[in-house]
Amino acid sequence: MLGARRLLGALRLCSSVSCPRPRASAKMRVRDALRVQDARGECVTVQGWIRSVRSQKEVLFLHVNDGSSLESLQIVADSSFDSRELTFGSSVQVQGQLVKSQSKRQNVELKAEKIEVIGDCEAKAFPIKYKERHPLEYLRQYPHLRCRTNALGSILRVRSEATAAIHSYFKDNGFVHIHTPVLTSNDCEGAGELFQVEPSSKIKGPKESFFDVPAFLTVSGQLHLEVMSGAFTQVFTFGPTFRAENSQSRRHLAEFYMVEAEISFVESLQDLMQVMEELFKATTEMVLSHCPEDVELCHQFIAAGQKGRLEHMLKNNFLIISYTEAIEILKQASQNFAFTPKWGVDLQTEHEKYLVRHCGNIPVFVINYPSELKPFYMRENEDGPQNTEVA
Amino acid sequence: MLGARRLLGALRLCSSVSCPRPRASAKMRVRDALRVQDARGECVTVQGWIRSVRSQKEVLFLHVNDGSSLESLQIVADSSFDSRELTFGSSVQVQGQLVKSQSKRQNVELKAEKIEVIGDCEAKAFPIKYKERHPLEYLRQYPHLRCRTNALGSILRVRSEATAAIHSYFKDNGFVHIHTPVLTSNDCEGAGELFQVEPSSKIKGPKESFFDVPAFLTVSGQLHLEVMSGAFTQVFTFGPTFRAENSQSRRHLAEFYMVEAEISFVESLQDLMQVMEELFKATTEMVLSHCPEDVELCHQFIAAGQKGRLEHMLKNNFLIISYTEAIEILKQASQNFAFTPKWGVDLQTEHEKYLVRHCGNIPVFVINYPSELKPFYMRENEDGPQNTEVA
Repeated sequence: MLGARRLLGALRLCSSVSCPRPRASAKMRVRDALRVQDARGECVTVQGWIRSVRSQKEVLFLHVNDGSSLESLQIVADSSFDSRELTFGSSVQVQGQLVKSQSKRQNVELKAEKIEVIGDCEAKAFPIKYKERHPLEYLRQYPHLRCRTNALGSILRVRSEATAAIHSYFKDNGFVHIHTPVLTSNDCEGAGELFQVEPSSKIKGPKESFFDVPAFLTVSGQLHLEVMSGAFTQVFTFGPTFRAENSQSRRHLAEFYMVEAEISFVESLQDLMQVMEELFKATTEMVLSHCPEDVELCHQFIAAGQKGRLEHMLKNNFLIISYTEAIEILKQASQNFAFTPKWGVDLQTEHEKYLVRHCGNIPVFVINYPSELKPFYMRENEDGPQNTEVA
Repeated sequence: MLGARRLLGALRLCSSVSCPRPRASAKMRVRDALRVQDARGECVTVQGWIRSVRSQKEVLFLHVNDGSSLESLQIVADSSFDSRELTFGSSVQVQGQLVKSQSKRQNVELKAEKIEVIGDCEAKAFPIKYKERHPLEYLRQYPHLRCRTNALGSILRVRSEATAAIHSYFKDNGFVHIHTPVLTSNDCEGAGELFQVEPSSKIKGPKESFFDVPAFLTVSGQLHLEVMSGAFTQVFTFGPTFRAENSQSRRHLAEFYMVEAEISFVESLQDLMQVMEELFKATTEMVLSHCPEDVELCHQFIAAGQKGRLEHMLKNNFLIISYTEAIEILKQASQNFAFTPKWGVDLQTEHEKYLVRHCGNIPVFVINYPSELKPFYMRENEDGPQNTEVA
């Protein structure tokens, strides 16, 4: 049924290793083809999945997408091609000439000379329908296919780009990357409920002997990173983290990726906040410049107004307010909170959201917390712990 | 006892946020200081750990290392400094002028104007001794300190560089990075014994309800990646992988990082082998050019001859031989194997090692295996399965 499957790991072995088959035309990703400025009939081959089919008089228009970008490449074929096999969802290999497009919708299009259906797709059986917008809840049933939709494709391209940007930022700024362990016997600062790990029940013999101590999935690489910063000064990790919290919410995941960094010889909290601000901004800039169409799609259909918020964030310095100031702002708010803000009590999500709105939708650092609200190892201010409200 | 600890997360809060303390001199990493070509008395501050102390007439020579490179920066101080506190292992902040060194051993040195001991180190209690080479087995007792030795520092810098190079290679070649899940209910192709995951025993209530199905730690992201390659064409993952194999050997780890990639529309096995060869070479080149001193250290003290092998690998194309050829080579070998090579039986480590030596210490791809030795989903050659020896 599905085109891609046939070619996954589809490895035809040539009889002669040193002499690969000569290629009639160069393979090109859709993303690269779309960027060609003055197309002059370059002979190229594109491979991907058909996203739309349209017949118009003697001409057949196809859109082919290979996941390298949100945009598809328009294929123009004449009536000599049999359109019956060229169905939505099929995977094809198209060879032809890259030419300037007549339409204003795109720069270039591919004038097909040869179209090969690699995997056909039966519309009735295919759960994703042509020209329909599917709710995410519906797509959840098809984890093996949903990434061929615009929404999931865009989100995963953005994630990939953001991941690369995070690695680049730290590398460019002299941080050593550390793979902190996933299996660990420490539960860090008690950041959350732990998953315990044991050899599967299929293994014979006493399980206790595998690890000498109970083994858990990491909730944070912080302790390992702190040790490493005592040798490399600046270190970071970006790996999977786990919480055994059985909550169904946007804020609770059993498994998620977390960025952590530790810096020795830091002189002020400002130095740390600067690193965090730069990391956010560098990552956002990279995503906006490398995936503008994907961001636009999220902006329009997934998180309305997101693009404007990101651009606004990039143009402004992050704000820094003290815990005492934050409580004052919250006390004066016209909004009714489920939890009444009170000095000495931790901030709730509703409070944090209000503070960000109050500060003009720019990220806000809240510093100088009462020491009672923080873990034992947090460094106290030089004027001593502050556990009572001061004017 | 240990300098670093005192400053880990050492965050002095300034009373005024907008007005950071003016700095007398620019902070510089040791790595960057060592690269200054024509030092002309630039005013810089370096922070790190003392690696050596030497008094000579009226002059005190220190070597300070911050983990940014294997090499330390030489600090030259006059007799006005009290050398009693400047002990091996202490962490210091040194301010001074970067000048051309009189010695041929280094380009630059730092003429100290101010040396501040941030954390002192008591030589007797410190398990790493000045000028001693410690066996790795000894250092294993001190996981929180061993990274301050040359050997562990070099290995972790190389790992960090290799990690960055792997991400760069795939990104530069149009692969989408996918975080394949660590928690999974599939055991892939049965690649190894599984770890099972359950909420820790501290959690009350029925554990069975957390996941609907038994949950394991991934042994491979292959199946997830294959699905993703059906949307993005080229995908990769580089994450932690787990095996519950209770073997104490160099080849068995409970947790390790694995690179996996999947490509749709591959036309020949050669295309795949080319990606693998390019990945190896790009990563090796990056490590050799970015960490030459670290590689040299490993070459001299850890893996003798390693550097030459890497350079040899870079200069040559990887070889490709068929399984039948491999068996022929092994049969003609003068070496006695623990497992006699036989057509139809899988290759052992001793066989693989011999084949690499036979081929001149260049990586070798062995292709065209008998189909019986491979998993069910491997694509058969176009001339059909080969399960008997052919001439």
